[in-house]
Amino acid sequence: MEVELGGVQEKTPAAPVQPPAARRFLAAAVGKPKEVVCTWAKNVKKVATDDPRRILHGMKVGLALTLVSLFYYVNPLYEGFGVSAMWAVLTVVVVMEYTVGGTLSKGLNRGCGTLLAGGVGLGAHHLADLCGPKGEPIVLGFLVFVLAAGATFSRFIPEVKARFDYGTMIFILTFSLVAVSSYRVDELLELAQQRLSTIAIGGATCICISLFVFPVWAGGDLHKLSANNLEKLATYLEGLAVEYFGEKEELDGALVKDKSFLQAYKSVLNSKTTEEALANFARWEPAHSKFLFYHPWNQYLKVGTQIRQCAYYIEALTTHIIKSQTPQPSSDVHRRIRNACMEMCSESSKTLNELAAGMRAMTRPSAAHVHMEASGAAANVLKAIVMEGGAVVEILQSASMLSLLTEIVCCTRDIAVAVEELARLAQFKSSDADDDAHRHRSTVRPIAETEGSPHHVINMGGQ
Amino acid sequence: MEVELGGVQEKTPAAPVQPPAARRFLAAAVGKPKEVVCTWAKNVKKVATDDPRRILHGMKVGLALTLVSLFYYVNPLYEGFGVSAMWAVLTVVVVMEYTVGGTLSKGLNRGCGTLLAGGVGLGAHHLADLCGPKGEPIVLGFLVFVLAAGATFSRFIPEVKARFDYGTMIFILTFSLVAVSSYRVDELLELAQQRLSTIAIGGATCICISLFVFPVWAGGDLHKLSANNLEKLATYLEGLAVEYFGEKEELDGALVKDKSFLQAYKSVLNSKTTEEALANFARWEPAHSKFLFYHPWNQYLKVGTQIRQCAYYIEALTTHIIKSQTPQPSSDVHRRIRNACMEMCSESSKTLNELAAGMRAMTRPSAAHVHMEASGAAANVLKAIVMEGGAVVEILQSASMLSLLTEIVCCTRDIAVAVEELARLAQFKSSDADDDAHRHRSTVRPIAETEGSPHHVINMGGQ
Repeated sequence: MEVELGGVQEKTPAAPVQPPAARRFLAAAVGKPKEVVCTWAKNVKKVATDDPRRILHGMKVGLALTLVSLFYYVNPLYEGFGVSAMWAVLTVVVVMEYTVGGTLSKGLNRGCGTLLAGGVGLGAHHLADLCGPKGEPIVLGFLVFVLAAGATFSRFIPEVKARFDYGTMIFILTFSLVAVSSYRVDELLELAQQRLSTIAIGGATCICISLFVFPVWAGGDLHKLSANNLEKLATYLEGLAVEYFGEKEELDGALVKDKSFLQAYKSVLNSKTTEEALANFARWEPAHSKFLFYHPWNQYLKVGTQIRQCAYYIEALTTHIIKSQTPQPSSDVHRRIRNACMEMCSESSKTLNELAAGMRAMTRPSAAHVHMEASGAAANVLKAIVMEGGAVVEILQSASMLSLLTEIVCCTRDIAVAVEELARLAQFKSSDADDDAHRHRSTVRPIAETEGSPHHVINMGGQ
Repeated sequence: MEVELGGVQEKTPAAPVQPPAARRFLAAAVGKPKEVVCTWAKNVKKVATDDPRRILHGMKVGLALTLVSLFYYVNPLYEGFGVSAMWAVLTVVVVMEYTVGGTLSKGLNRGCGTLLAGGVGLGAHHLADLCGPKGEPIVLGFLVFVLAAGATFSRFIPEVKARFDYGTMIFILTFSLVAVSSYRVDELLELAQQRLSTIAIGGATCICISLFVFPVWAGGDLHKLSANNLEKLATYLEGLAVEYFGEKEELDGALVKDKSFLQAYKSVLNSKTTEEALANFARWEPAHSKFLFYHPWNQYLKVGTQIRQCAYYIEALTTHIIKSQTPQPSSDVHRRIRNACMEMCSESSKTLNELAAGMRAMTRPSAAHVHMEASGAAANVLKAIVMEGGAVVEILQSASMLSLLTEIVCCTRDIAVAVEELARLAQFKSSDADDDAHRHRSTVRPIAETEGSPHHVINMGGQ
C-alpha cells in the first residue's frame, strides 16, 4: 500500500510542447477515443486499488456535506441560522482532509484563526467608530492593509508555515470580512455569533467523521511508510545477491539493467517531504491503536534520514553496476570475492527485513542483530581477501563496487541504531519473552561504543 | 537568494516531548523573555533578508484586499453588489499566491471550477424541481453526496492533483452551495450572477497585482534555482580541491569535518519537490523577460535530476571523507594521486561554474567544454597512475574515494549534456560572436556519441 500525500506523486512528464507532438496528441485524442478512455480508466482503477481508503475518503466528504446541508432542508434549523448555514458547507469543504491529523490541524487552525480574527476585527470596528463617519473607512482600510500584509509575511517564517499556515490565512480572511462588513452591518455581534456557530458545527462534523468513520491515521501511515522503505532497500539487496552475484557465470550490468529490483528503491530517495508532512499531522492526533500521545514521531524522521543515506549509496552502486558491462575473469579470487559480496548483500537484506518486521509488529528487532553480525563478518572476509594482495588487477577493477557495498553495510548498521532508538523511545515490546534475557546482548550499540566494529574494520579507503 | 516554496523549508526539529524538556522550555520562555524575543526577531529578519520580495508580497496582498474593500465603502458599488462583495474579499485571500504562475493557476482554477459547478448546480436544481416538494431535498442530498464523493476521489489522480486540485475543491464547494441554497433561494440566477461577478473582480484584482506590481515569476525562480544548485556543487568541489587535497601535508577527514563547503550542497538533495512545483506554475505564466511561452520548463527538471544524481555521489564521498581520519603516507605516488584528484575537483568545479554562468546569462556554455576536457584528462592521469600498479596498498586504501571522485567527474559531464540540451531547446545565444565558428566543436555531445569518452576511459571498476 502506497502512502501518498500532497502533490508529490510521480507525475507523468508532459511531452515537450512542439507542434508535431501537439498534433500527435490531438490525433490520438480524436482518432482513438476508446484507447484514451481505456488508459484513463486504468489510471483511475490504479489510484483506487493502490489505496482503497481513497474511495472511502470521497464518501466521507459526501456524507459530511449531506449532513450539514440539513441546515437548509430542515425548517427549524434554517430558521435559527438562515444564510449563515452556508459557512458550515464552506468549512466542511476546506477542512476535511485525508488523515485525522490533517483534519484536526485544519479544524483547530480554522477555529483559533476565526476566534482571534473576530476579536481583533471587533476591536478595529470600535476604534474606527471613534474616528467619525469620514475617518471610519480610512482607518478600516489602513488596518486591513497593515494586518493582512503582516500576517501574509508571517506565513514565510518556517515555524509558522509548518503548523499555522492555514490558521494565518483564515485570520486574514475573517479579519478582513469582519472589519469591512462592520462598516455596513449594524448587528455585527449577532452575525458573528451565527457564523461562528455554523463554522463550529461544520468543523465538528468533519472532525467526528474523520475520527469515527474508518479513520486514516497520519501516524499509522508514517509508521507503515518507514517499514515499507526498509523493505524496499531489503528487496534491492536481495535482488542484487540473487540476480547479480548469484548463479550466473559472469557479472554483467547489461543483464540486470531492466530488473525491477533496480527501480523499487527510487521512491525512497524523495520521501523526505511526505515523511515530514505525515509527522507534522501525526503530532495533532490523539492516542490510537498502539500509538500513544507522546509517540516519538521525530525519531521516524531520523530513521528516514538514515534510510535515505543508504539509498544514496544504492543509487551510486546501481549507476555503477549498469555502466560496467565487461565480463570479468572467473579466477578463484574472483569467486571468493563474489561469494563475500553475495553474503554481504543477502545478510544486509535480512537485517533490513527484520528491522521492518520488528517495526510492523512494534517489537524490538532483536533477530536483526544476528544478520548484522553475519554481514559484518562477510565484509571482514572481503577485507581479508583484498589484503592478501593477490590478484591486484581484479581487485582494482571492482574497487568501486566493493567499497560502495561496504558503505551500504555500514549504513545498514546506522539504520539499525536509529530503529533501535525508536524501539526504546516508543517502548516496543520484546519480540519473545524467552529472549528477554538476551536483550541486552542483542541491543545494537551506537557505532562509537562498538569495539572493533565492522564499521571501521571493513572500511577500505583511507585507513 | 534562496528560492523557498511550500512547506519544504528546513524545520527546526522540536525537542522530544518529555517533562524535563518541557520544563526547560517553560523556564527558558518565562525566565529569559528578552532572549526569546531576540531569537524570534532574528528569525524574522532572516526570512526578510533571505528574500526581500517576501515583504513586497505581504504588501501586495494588503493592497489587493484594500482595493476590493472599496465595494463596501463606496455607496454606488455596494448598492450594486450588496453582501456578495464578501466573495471578492474571500477570493483575494485564497487566490493570491507568491508567484505569478501560482496566482494565475489558482485564479483560472477558481474561475473554471465556479462556472462549471454553477452550471451543474442549476441543472441539479431543475432536476430536483421535477420531483415535487417532498422529493426535492432527497434528490438534492443524493446529488451532493455523489458528486462530492466523486470529485474528492478524483483529487487523488496524479494528473488532476498536479494541475486541477484547487479547481476540483472549488467545484465541490460551489456545487454544494448552489444546489443546497436552491432549495431556499428563489432568485437563484440573480444571486449566482452577483457572486460570479464579484469572484471575477476579486480574481482579476489578484492577477493584475501579481502581474504588474513587482511580479515574482515562478519560471525565473526555477531558472535561478537550477543555476544556484550548479554553483553549490561547484563550491563543494572547489572546497575539496583547496581544503582537502590542497596544501596540507596529510589528508585528514577530521580537519575538514566542520568546513562550510561540506554543508552547502545538502539542500540540493531534496530540491525535487520545489523544482516540480515551480515548473508546474511556470507553465501557466505568459512570456516574460527572456522566457518565451514555449520555454522548455521540463528540461529544467531533467537538469535537476542530473544535478541531484551528482549530489548523491557527493553525499557518499562526504561521509567517506569524514570517516577516514588516518593520516596517509606521503610517497611520490601518493603526491601524484593527490595532484590528479585536486585537478579533477578543481576543473569539475570550473565546469559547473561555467554552466551556471551560462545559464544565468542565457548563453551557450561553450567555455565549460575546456574545463570538462581538463578534468577528463586529470581522470585519465589518475587511471594511468593506478594502472602502473606500483604502490598497490596505497591505491587500495583510497579506492573508494578515487572511484567516487571519478563518478562525480562523469556526473559533471551528464549535467553538461542536460544543460546543453536546455540551451538548444531554449535557444540560448552564443556567449560571444567570435566563437560562433567554434560552436559545433565545443558542443557537448551525449555520452553515447562520444568516442573514447572519459566516461568510459576513467571508469575504474568493472572494466
